[in-house]
Parts: sequence; C-alpha cells; structure tokens
Amino acid sequence: MKIKLGDKASFTRTVTETDVVLYGGISGDLNPAHFNEEFASKSIFKGRIAHGMLTASYISTVLGMHLPGPGCIYLSQNLKFTKPVRFGDTITATVEVVEIDHDKNQVTLLTICRNQLEHVVLKGQAKVIPPKS
Amino acid sequence: MKIKLGDKASFTRTVTETDVVLYGGISGDLNPAHFNEEFASKSIFKGRIAHGMLTASYISTVLGMHLPGPGCIYLSQNLKFTKPVRFGDTITATVEVVEIDHDKNQVTLLTICRNQLEHVVLKGQAKVIPPKS
Amino acid sequence: MKIKLGDKASFTRTVTETDVVLYGGISGDLNPAHFNEEFASKSIFKGRIAHGMLTASYISTVLGMHLPGPGCIYLSQNLKFTKPVRFGDTITATVEVVEIDHDKNQVTLLTICRNQLEHVVLKGQAKVIPPKS
Amino acid sequence: MKIKLGDKASFTRTVTETDVVLYGGISGDLNPAHFNEEFASKSIFKGRIAHGMLTASYISTVLGMHLPGPGCIYLSQNLKFTKPVRFGDTITATVEVVEIDHDKNQVTLLTICRNQLEHVVLKGQAKVIPPKS
Repeated sequence: MKIKLGDKASFTRTVTETDVVLYGGISGDLNPAHFNEEFASKSIFKGRIAHGMLTASYISTVLGMHLPGPGCIYLSQNLKFTKPVRFGDTITATVEVVEIDHDKNQVTLLTICRNQLEHVVLKGQAKVIPPKS
Repeated sequence: MKIKLGDKASFTRTVTETDVVLYGGISGDLNPAHFNEEFASKSIFKGRIAHGMLTASYISTVLGMHLPGPGCIYLSQNLKFTKPVRFGDTITATVEVVEIDHDKNQVTLLTICRNQLEHVVLKGQAKVIPPKS
Repeated sequence: MKIKLGDKASFTRTVTETDVVLYGGISGDLNPAHFNEEFASKSIFKGRIAHGMLTASYISTVLGMHLPGPGCIYLSQNLKFTKPVRFGDTITATVEVVEIDHDKNQVTLLTICRNQLEHVVLKGQAKVIPPKS
Repeated sequence: MKIKLGDKASFTRTVTETDVVLYGGISGDLNPAHFNEEFASKSIFKGRIAHGMLTASYISTVLGMHLPGPGCIYLSQNLKFTKPVRFGDTITATVEVVEIDHDKNQVTLLTICRNQLEHVVLKGQAKVIPPKS
C-alpha cells in the first residue's frame, strides 16, 4: 500500500462495563472514577466513566491494523482528552495522514475519537514508521 | 495533599502474555506484532511485543491513583515510544511534577516508563487538573 | 460408563456481555455485530448478538465433560445457526447418542442448543471416539 | 465488494495458554484435556491441547470480519478436527469461496485451519448470506 496525504481509516466499538473492568485489571488503574459508583456519582462527571487511555487504545488499533497496518512502528502519540466516555458509548477512532516525511520515512496522522453523538472525546497526532511495502 | 514541584510517584508491573491477550480483546488491537509469533519473529523486534499503549496505561494508573490521585481530571498526555516492551518485562512508570499553574489550576508532570534494565521504554508529559483538596 | 443409544446430557449457561467481550478477544472476532451497538441496532437483529461459535462451544462442553466425557476425541461437528442469541439469553446445549459404530469405535450425537423460550438456536451432529472405559 | 468464486481471506493467531484458560471460563469446557497437565500427559496427545472449537472460532473471525465481512449472516458450519492444536501453535484460518447461489443469496466457503508446519488441523465448509453491498 502506498500511503498518500488524506488517507483515512477508522475503528468503532461500544465501550462496555466489561472493557473497563478488564482494563482496570491489566493496567492497574483502579481509580474510583471508573470503579466506585458512589464516588463517581458525586464527581463532575456524575457517574463512572471509562479510562481515557482505553479510548486512546482504539487509535493504536487503527494504526496497527489498518493504516499503515501490520509492521508499522509506533513512534509517538499526543492525546487531548476533551470529553468523558461513558459505559455504553460507541466510539469511532479515525486516523488521517496529514504529513509524509520521505527522508525520515515517517508518517504523521491526525487522530480523533468521537462518540455516537459525533462529539470529539479525544484528539491528537501520531507519528509512525510505515511497514516496508 | 498539597502538590509541590518535584513530587514523584510510581507504579511497577510485570507485563504478562495474559495482559497482552486481554488488552487486545478490549482494545480491538490484534496487530500480529502482538498475537502472531510467526509474523513477529521475522520483524525487527524478533518476537511478539506488548502494545505501547498498554505501557502507557501505567502512567494513567499513577496519575489517577497516586499523584495527584482520585478526583484528578486527565487533560492531555504526550507519549514517545522509545523501546519495545516484551512479555515478562517489569515496567516502572514514574511521574514527577514539573510545573504548577495556579491560575489555570493545572499541573504538568514528566512521565517516564523504564524496564527492569532501567532502559526508558516510554516518555512524555501529562497535564491534569488536581482534585480539590 | 457404557454408552447406549438415547443417552443424553446437557449444559446450561446465561450468555453475558462479558462472555462476548472475552470471546472476541481470544477468537479475534470483533465483528461489529457483536461489538458496535450503533451498527448492530441497524441490522436485521436490531442489536448486538453473541457469536454463534460461542453457543457452539457449549456443545463441546457437554461432550468433553459429561457425555462421553474426559478422554473422548472430538472428530467432527456440523452446526446450523437457526436463531440469534442475545446478551442475557440462557442457552441449554443438549447432546443425545443417536448412533454407535462399534467397529470404528465412534459415537454420533445429535447436538441441539435452545434458549430460555425453548427456541432452537443451533443444531447439528457430533462424532466422537469415546474414552476407553 | 462483489464476491467471486475463488476469493480468499485468512486470519492468523498464536494460541496462548491464556486463550485456553479464558475460553474454558466462557464456554464452561473445563475438560482435563485442556486444564489438567497430569491427565493430559497420559493421553494420546501427551500434553494439554487447545479446544477444537477455539480453533474453529478463527473461521468465524475471517467470515465476519473479512470475507464476506460485517453484516454477513452465518448459516452453517461443518468441522472436522484432524490434528490437535498445542499451546504456542500459530494457526492460520483460510476461507475460500467455492459456490455462490444467487437465487438463495447464499455463499459456500471452504474453511481450513493449518498450523505453523502447514499441517491441516481443522477443515470444513461454511454457508453464509453475504451482506447487502
């Protein structure tokens, strides 16, 4: 695959309570914002929310599986968490090629996650080395 | 807790094959670099590696559970993936307060993950709003 | 145990969202029919459904644990998926011996899965070599 | 996508002990052939093996995610288990379109799983209704 400016790919998933429980177990992030409904219901989010880094994982999914796909090397990622993600939200992570540096063999992608209402919940940029084609 | 410049906290965990399998399931990131030993053994990493974003999750763990701790709001995170993490590696994520903006009520932390050989595998910066004390 | 024509055994389980999330992770089957509520709600099934092969796994459970039980060798299985299985459905897998071939030492079983409304969701036949008694 | 005779797709995954443990938990199939090394080492397989139905799940993965892909309806599957799959084996499931029935809108696919030595461990046929294109 020859990567071009403007190339896009996406991945969509409904965030379940199971995802959050398992993510807590493997990350060790047992923050009460995700696991204690009594605590979370008194926070500004008014209930348990998903880990921001769980949403961020969907970006890695698109990069590693679709664009540029298997064999790419993940160099860096910037993330801004702009809205909370709640259990049951359906998140779409989209990546778009915005810069190609042929000398360094690096590709920069705009990375945005939106919920089912099209609200941006996460945005940032990724840099990757694409797989040899 | 009154946060001061130079405050530090950390979290350590051994990355298991189980962590990677579960992380793949909840993120959807089933990139062969993590799940196909035949493919991975021919890559530059010479075997399956853990998801970079799984390592990044440990930073979120320290921020949300220790410094600043429960109730903090995660604004942003920059990540540079500097070395691969292999199954069985023991990773320590350390965060350190490097800037406090009292007007905006924002704290910036240096975030670094090292393996058991003290090699830096991930580095970056986080911005958070600390919980009301 | 001496296996006779007409011998029956069954296994019952409520299918949870957790089962589906974990099954997706270990099978790699992240089909949006199971993981994307927005997509699934527009399908003919009007919502997320469980993997058909997850229901099929309950047949293997009865065969390997009850009839003929540990030590049996699974030769073949035919499956017809006749109705969708939804999160929260309680499925009963039943196997019944319908043929015994003493020369080949093979047993054929009718294998049927029903939901809590007694609707058949899956049917087929299995062939196994029973354990030495 | 217009499906044609001879179209092929595949999915590859290394079977881990974690996969088997999780599969046992969600299927209920705790047959000692998969979970009891003492028992399994005295069987004809000389050690624990993976569930045949776990291997079969990879076929569903290819059908539901790649060919014909999301929106397809799984009608039936025949399976012959031809060789044991061991922990650490890397399995490739391949599906190939062998019949298209335009009147019934049904597609038949040959479904084969091979290990890293190219030995066939599972073979059969699937029937699906492809998604509307």
